[in-house]
This record gives sequence, C-alpha cells and structure tokens, in this order.
Amino acid sequence: MPIYSKSLQRLISALHCLPGIGPKSAQRLAFHILKSSRAEANELAQSILAAKEKMKSCSVCGNITDSDPCLICDDSTRDGSTICVVEQPQDIFIFEKMGEYKGTYHVLMGALSPLDGVGPDDLKIKELVTRIEQDKIKEVIIATNPNVEGEATAAYLSKLIKPLGVKVTQLAQGMPMGSDLEYADEVTLAKALEGRREI
Amino acid sequence: MPIYSKSLQRLISALHCLPGIGPKSAQRLAFHILKSSRAEANELAQSILAAKEKMKSCSVCGNITDSDPCLICDDSTRDGSTICVVEQPQDIFIFEKMGEYKGTYHVLMGALSPLDGVGPDDLKIKELVTRIEQDKIKEVIIATNPNVEGEATAAYLSKLIKPLGVKVTQLAQGMPMGSDLEYADEVTLAKALEGRREI
Repeated sequence: MPIYSKSLQRLISALHCLPGIGPKSAQRLAFHILKSSRAEANELAQSILAAKEKMKSCSVCGNITDSDPCLICDDSTRDGSTICVVEQPQDIFIFEKMGEYKGTYHVLMGALSPLDGVGPDDLKIKELVTRIEQDKIKEVIIATNPNVEGEATAAYLSKLIKPLGVKVTQLAQGMPMGSDLEYADEVTLAKALEGRREI
Repeated sequence: MPIYSKSLQRLISALHCLPGIGPKSAQRLAFHILKSSRAEANELAQSILAAKEKMKSCSVCGNITDSDPCLICDDSTRDGSTICVVEQPQDIFIFEKMGEYKGTYHVLMGALSPLDGVGPDDLKIKELVTRIEQDKIKEVIIATNPNVEGEATAAYLSKLIKPLGVKVTQLAQGMPMGSDLEYADEVTLAKALEGRREI
C-alpha cells in the first residue's frame, strides 16, 4: 500500500526536485500548502507560472528580467562605461543589495570548467567583447567566484580584454570582515598577505 | 529602483511564505525555478493546484486523502478495534513509515493549548468519542507530542475515554535510541527513570 495518496505524493515529488529541499522538507512544505488557504496556494502556483512565462534574459547584459533591456541597462543615471562581469544573474542582486556599484553588468552564464566541458564558447564572452568594443567601456571589473573555475575564468578574460585597451580589475581577495585569523584557511590568508596594503 | 523585476519579486515573496524558507532560500529557489525547464516548473505549479483541489480530510479519521474514506480506514486488513490518536495528519505518515502499526488513526487537528485559545471543542474529540462508542474500539493509543500541550491533551483524553471502558495507552517516553546519556535533557532522563523496566 502506498503511504501517501496520489496527489500528495505528486506534490512532494515536485517539491523534492527543488535545491536544498530533502524528502522531509518536501513533506513539511506539502502539508503546509495543503493547510494554507486556497488563495495562498493559488498565488504560489500562479507566481511560478507567471515568472516562467514573463522572465527572460536581458539582451544586453544577460540579467534575468521581465523587460528588455533590463532595468539596470535601461537606467541612464548609471555609469555605462564600467562593466562588472559576474557568473550568474543572481550575483547581480548581491551587488545591487550592497548598493555601492553604479555601473552595468555582464553575466557570463557560468565559469570555465574543462572537466565539465565548459569552454569559452559556452560562456557569453563574445558578447562581452562586442560590448567593450562598441560601448567605449573604460573599466571591466571581474567578479567571478573566488574558486578554481572563477579564477581560471578571470585569468582568461584578463588576457583577452587587456589588449582591447580597457582597464581590467578584479575584486580584492583577503580576510572577510568580521572573521577571525584563527579560523582563516591558508589559501585566503596567503591571498590576504599577497594583497597587503600600506596603511 | 526596485532590485528585482516584478514577476521575480512576486515569486520570491510567494516562496518566502513557505515554512523554513527565508529570504535567501526563497531567492535561491526562485532562480532555480527560472533556470529549470518549462515542464518542470509547470509540474510544480500544477501539482500544487491539483493537491489543493483534490485533497480533503477523511470523514472517518481526519487523515489527508484524495479518496474518502482514506486508504487506511478503507483497508479491511487493518485492525479496526485500535485507534491511534495523533495531533496532525502528517503524524500518520511517520507511523506508516515505521510500519509496525496495523490499527486505524484519529487526527485531533491540534492539541489543547489554553494560551492559544485552543479548547476541547476546537479539536476532533467529539468525533473520537463517537467512533469509540460506535465501532467497538478496544484500545486507544494516545500519540500526541511529548510536550506541554500534547501531555495536557493526553491527560484530558485519558480522563474522558477511560470511563467508556476502553484500554487507553500512551507512547513510552524515555531515552531515544542511539542517543547518549551525557546529552540527555533532565526531563527526558526523569521520564526514562520513572518508566524503567525490569530486564
């Protein structure tokens, strides 16, 4: 005998497909949805369908948006001569939450990873080069993740872009604020030492 | 300027309403849904709508089901003379996973909690008494949660049901298997001592 009735099992399976949602969480969420009001459950389902329907990639920067170009590319008060290169659309939101950056973005849609078969042609690198050449870009800030793939991608991009005559920078690497030397890993500490500044 | 575009913000807000899903998880899930295939997103949305549409409470025991009576109440191979009383429908699935119990269930839909304004009339207690009287029940196993509300509910039910001439039992309380005396809380240890058995 199946433990769950069909519709419940279907809902639990669908929720279980989400990242970070194990079988226990999926069950908890499913029961929450069953207990919630019809309006609430409807809103959840409809927002999924609407997002999937309306959201697309910005044709300029690759940001996820429901208008094209996206709100950031379309904002004339932003500095159009600086591009911050990120791996994923969600990285843009992290920068925007921080609020200190007023330039534009470019989403690579991944990082170089030969082991996973991701080469330069699989990333939005051609599009980046075209933008640099056409839009009189002055500075490209590379903000790929500080891991093996991200670092390789940054090195590749730097080699490719510098000859175009633009300034290429990368996010500083070192000790995170609020951390403790005692718990720093060696790679981070080495990067912090290497990047030490006079004060 | 809003950080997220409208449809994305709507999706994140809807996901944020789920239990245990904070703003960061909601964002991560939303981006996953946007990246996933249309079929996958559709399945998630439709399974929510279908579950909400089809699932109802079993008219006998209060289990969540898409057929009435539920698969458990409808199963003639189960022992209809024993009722296990639980607080929530999901508790039934925990028992069924364990697989050792072959009787029927009764869902109270909560536990007595005067502070939250939950009294005996707010729980499915009348229905339980009716079942006991009509179905020739021999044993009622009280499996409310081992916390203040659950214990109060168990005590209340025991007083109410015993005069009907049925055996009333409660789940054993003591040390959980695989645990360590060193980390046991005092209440659990006291319960384990109180309920000690000769070996």
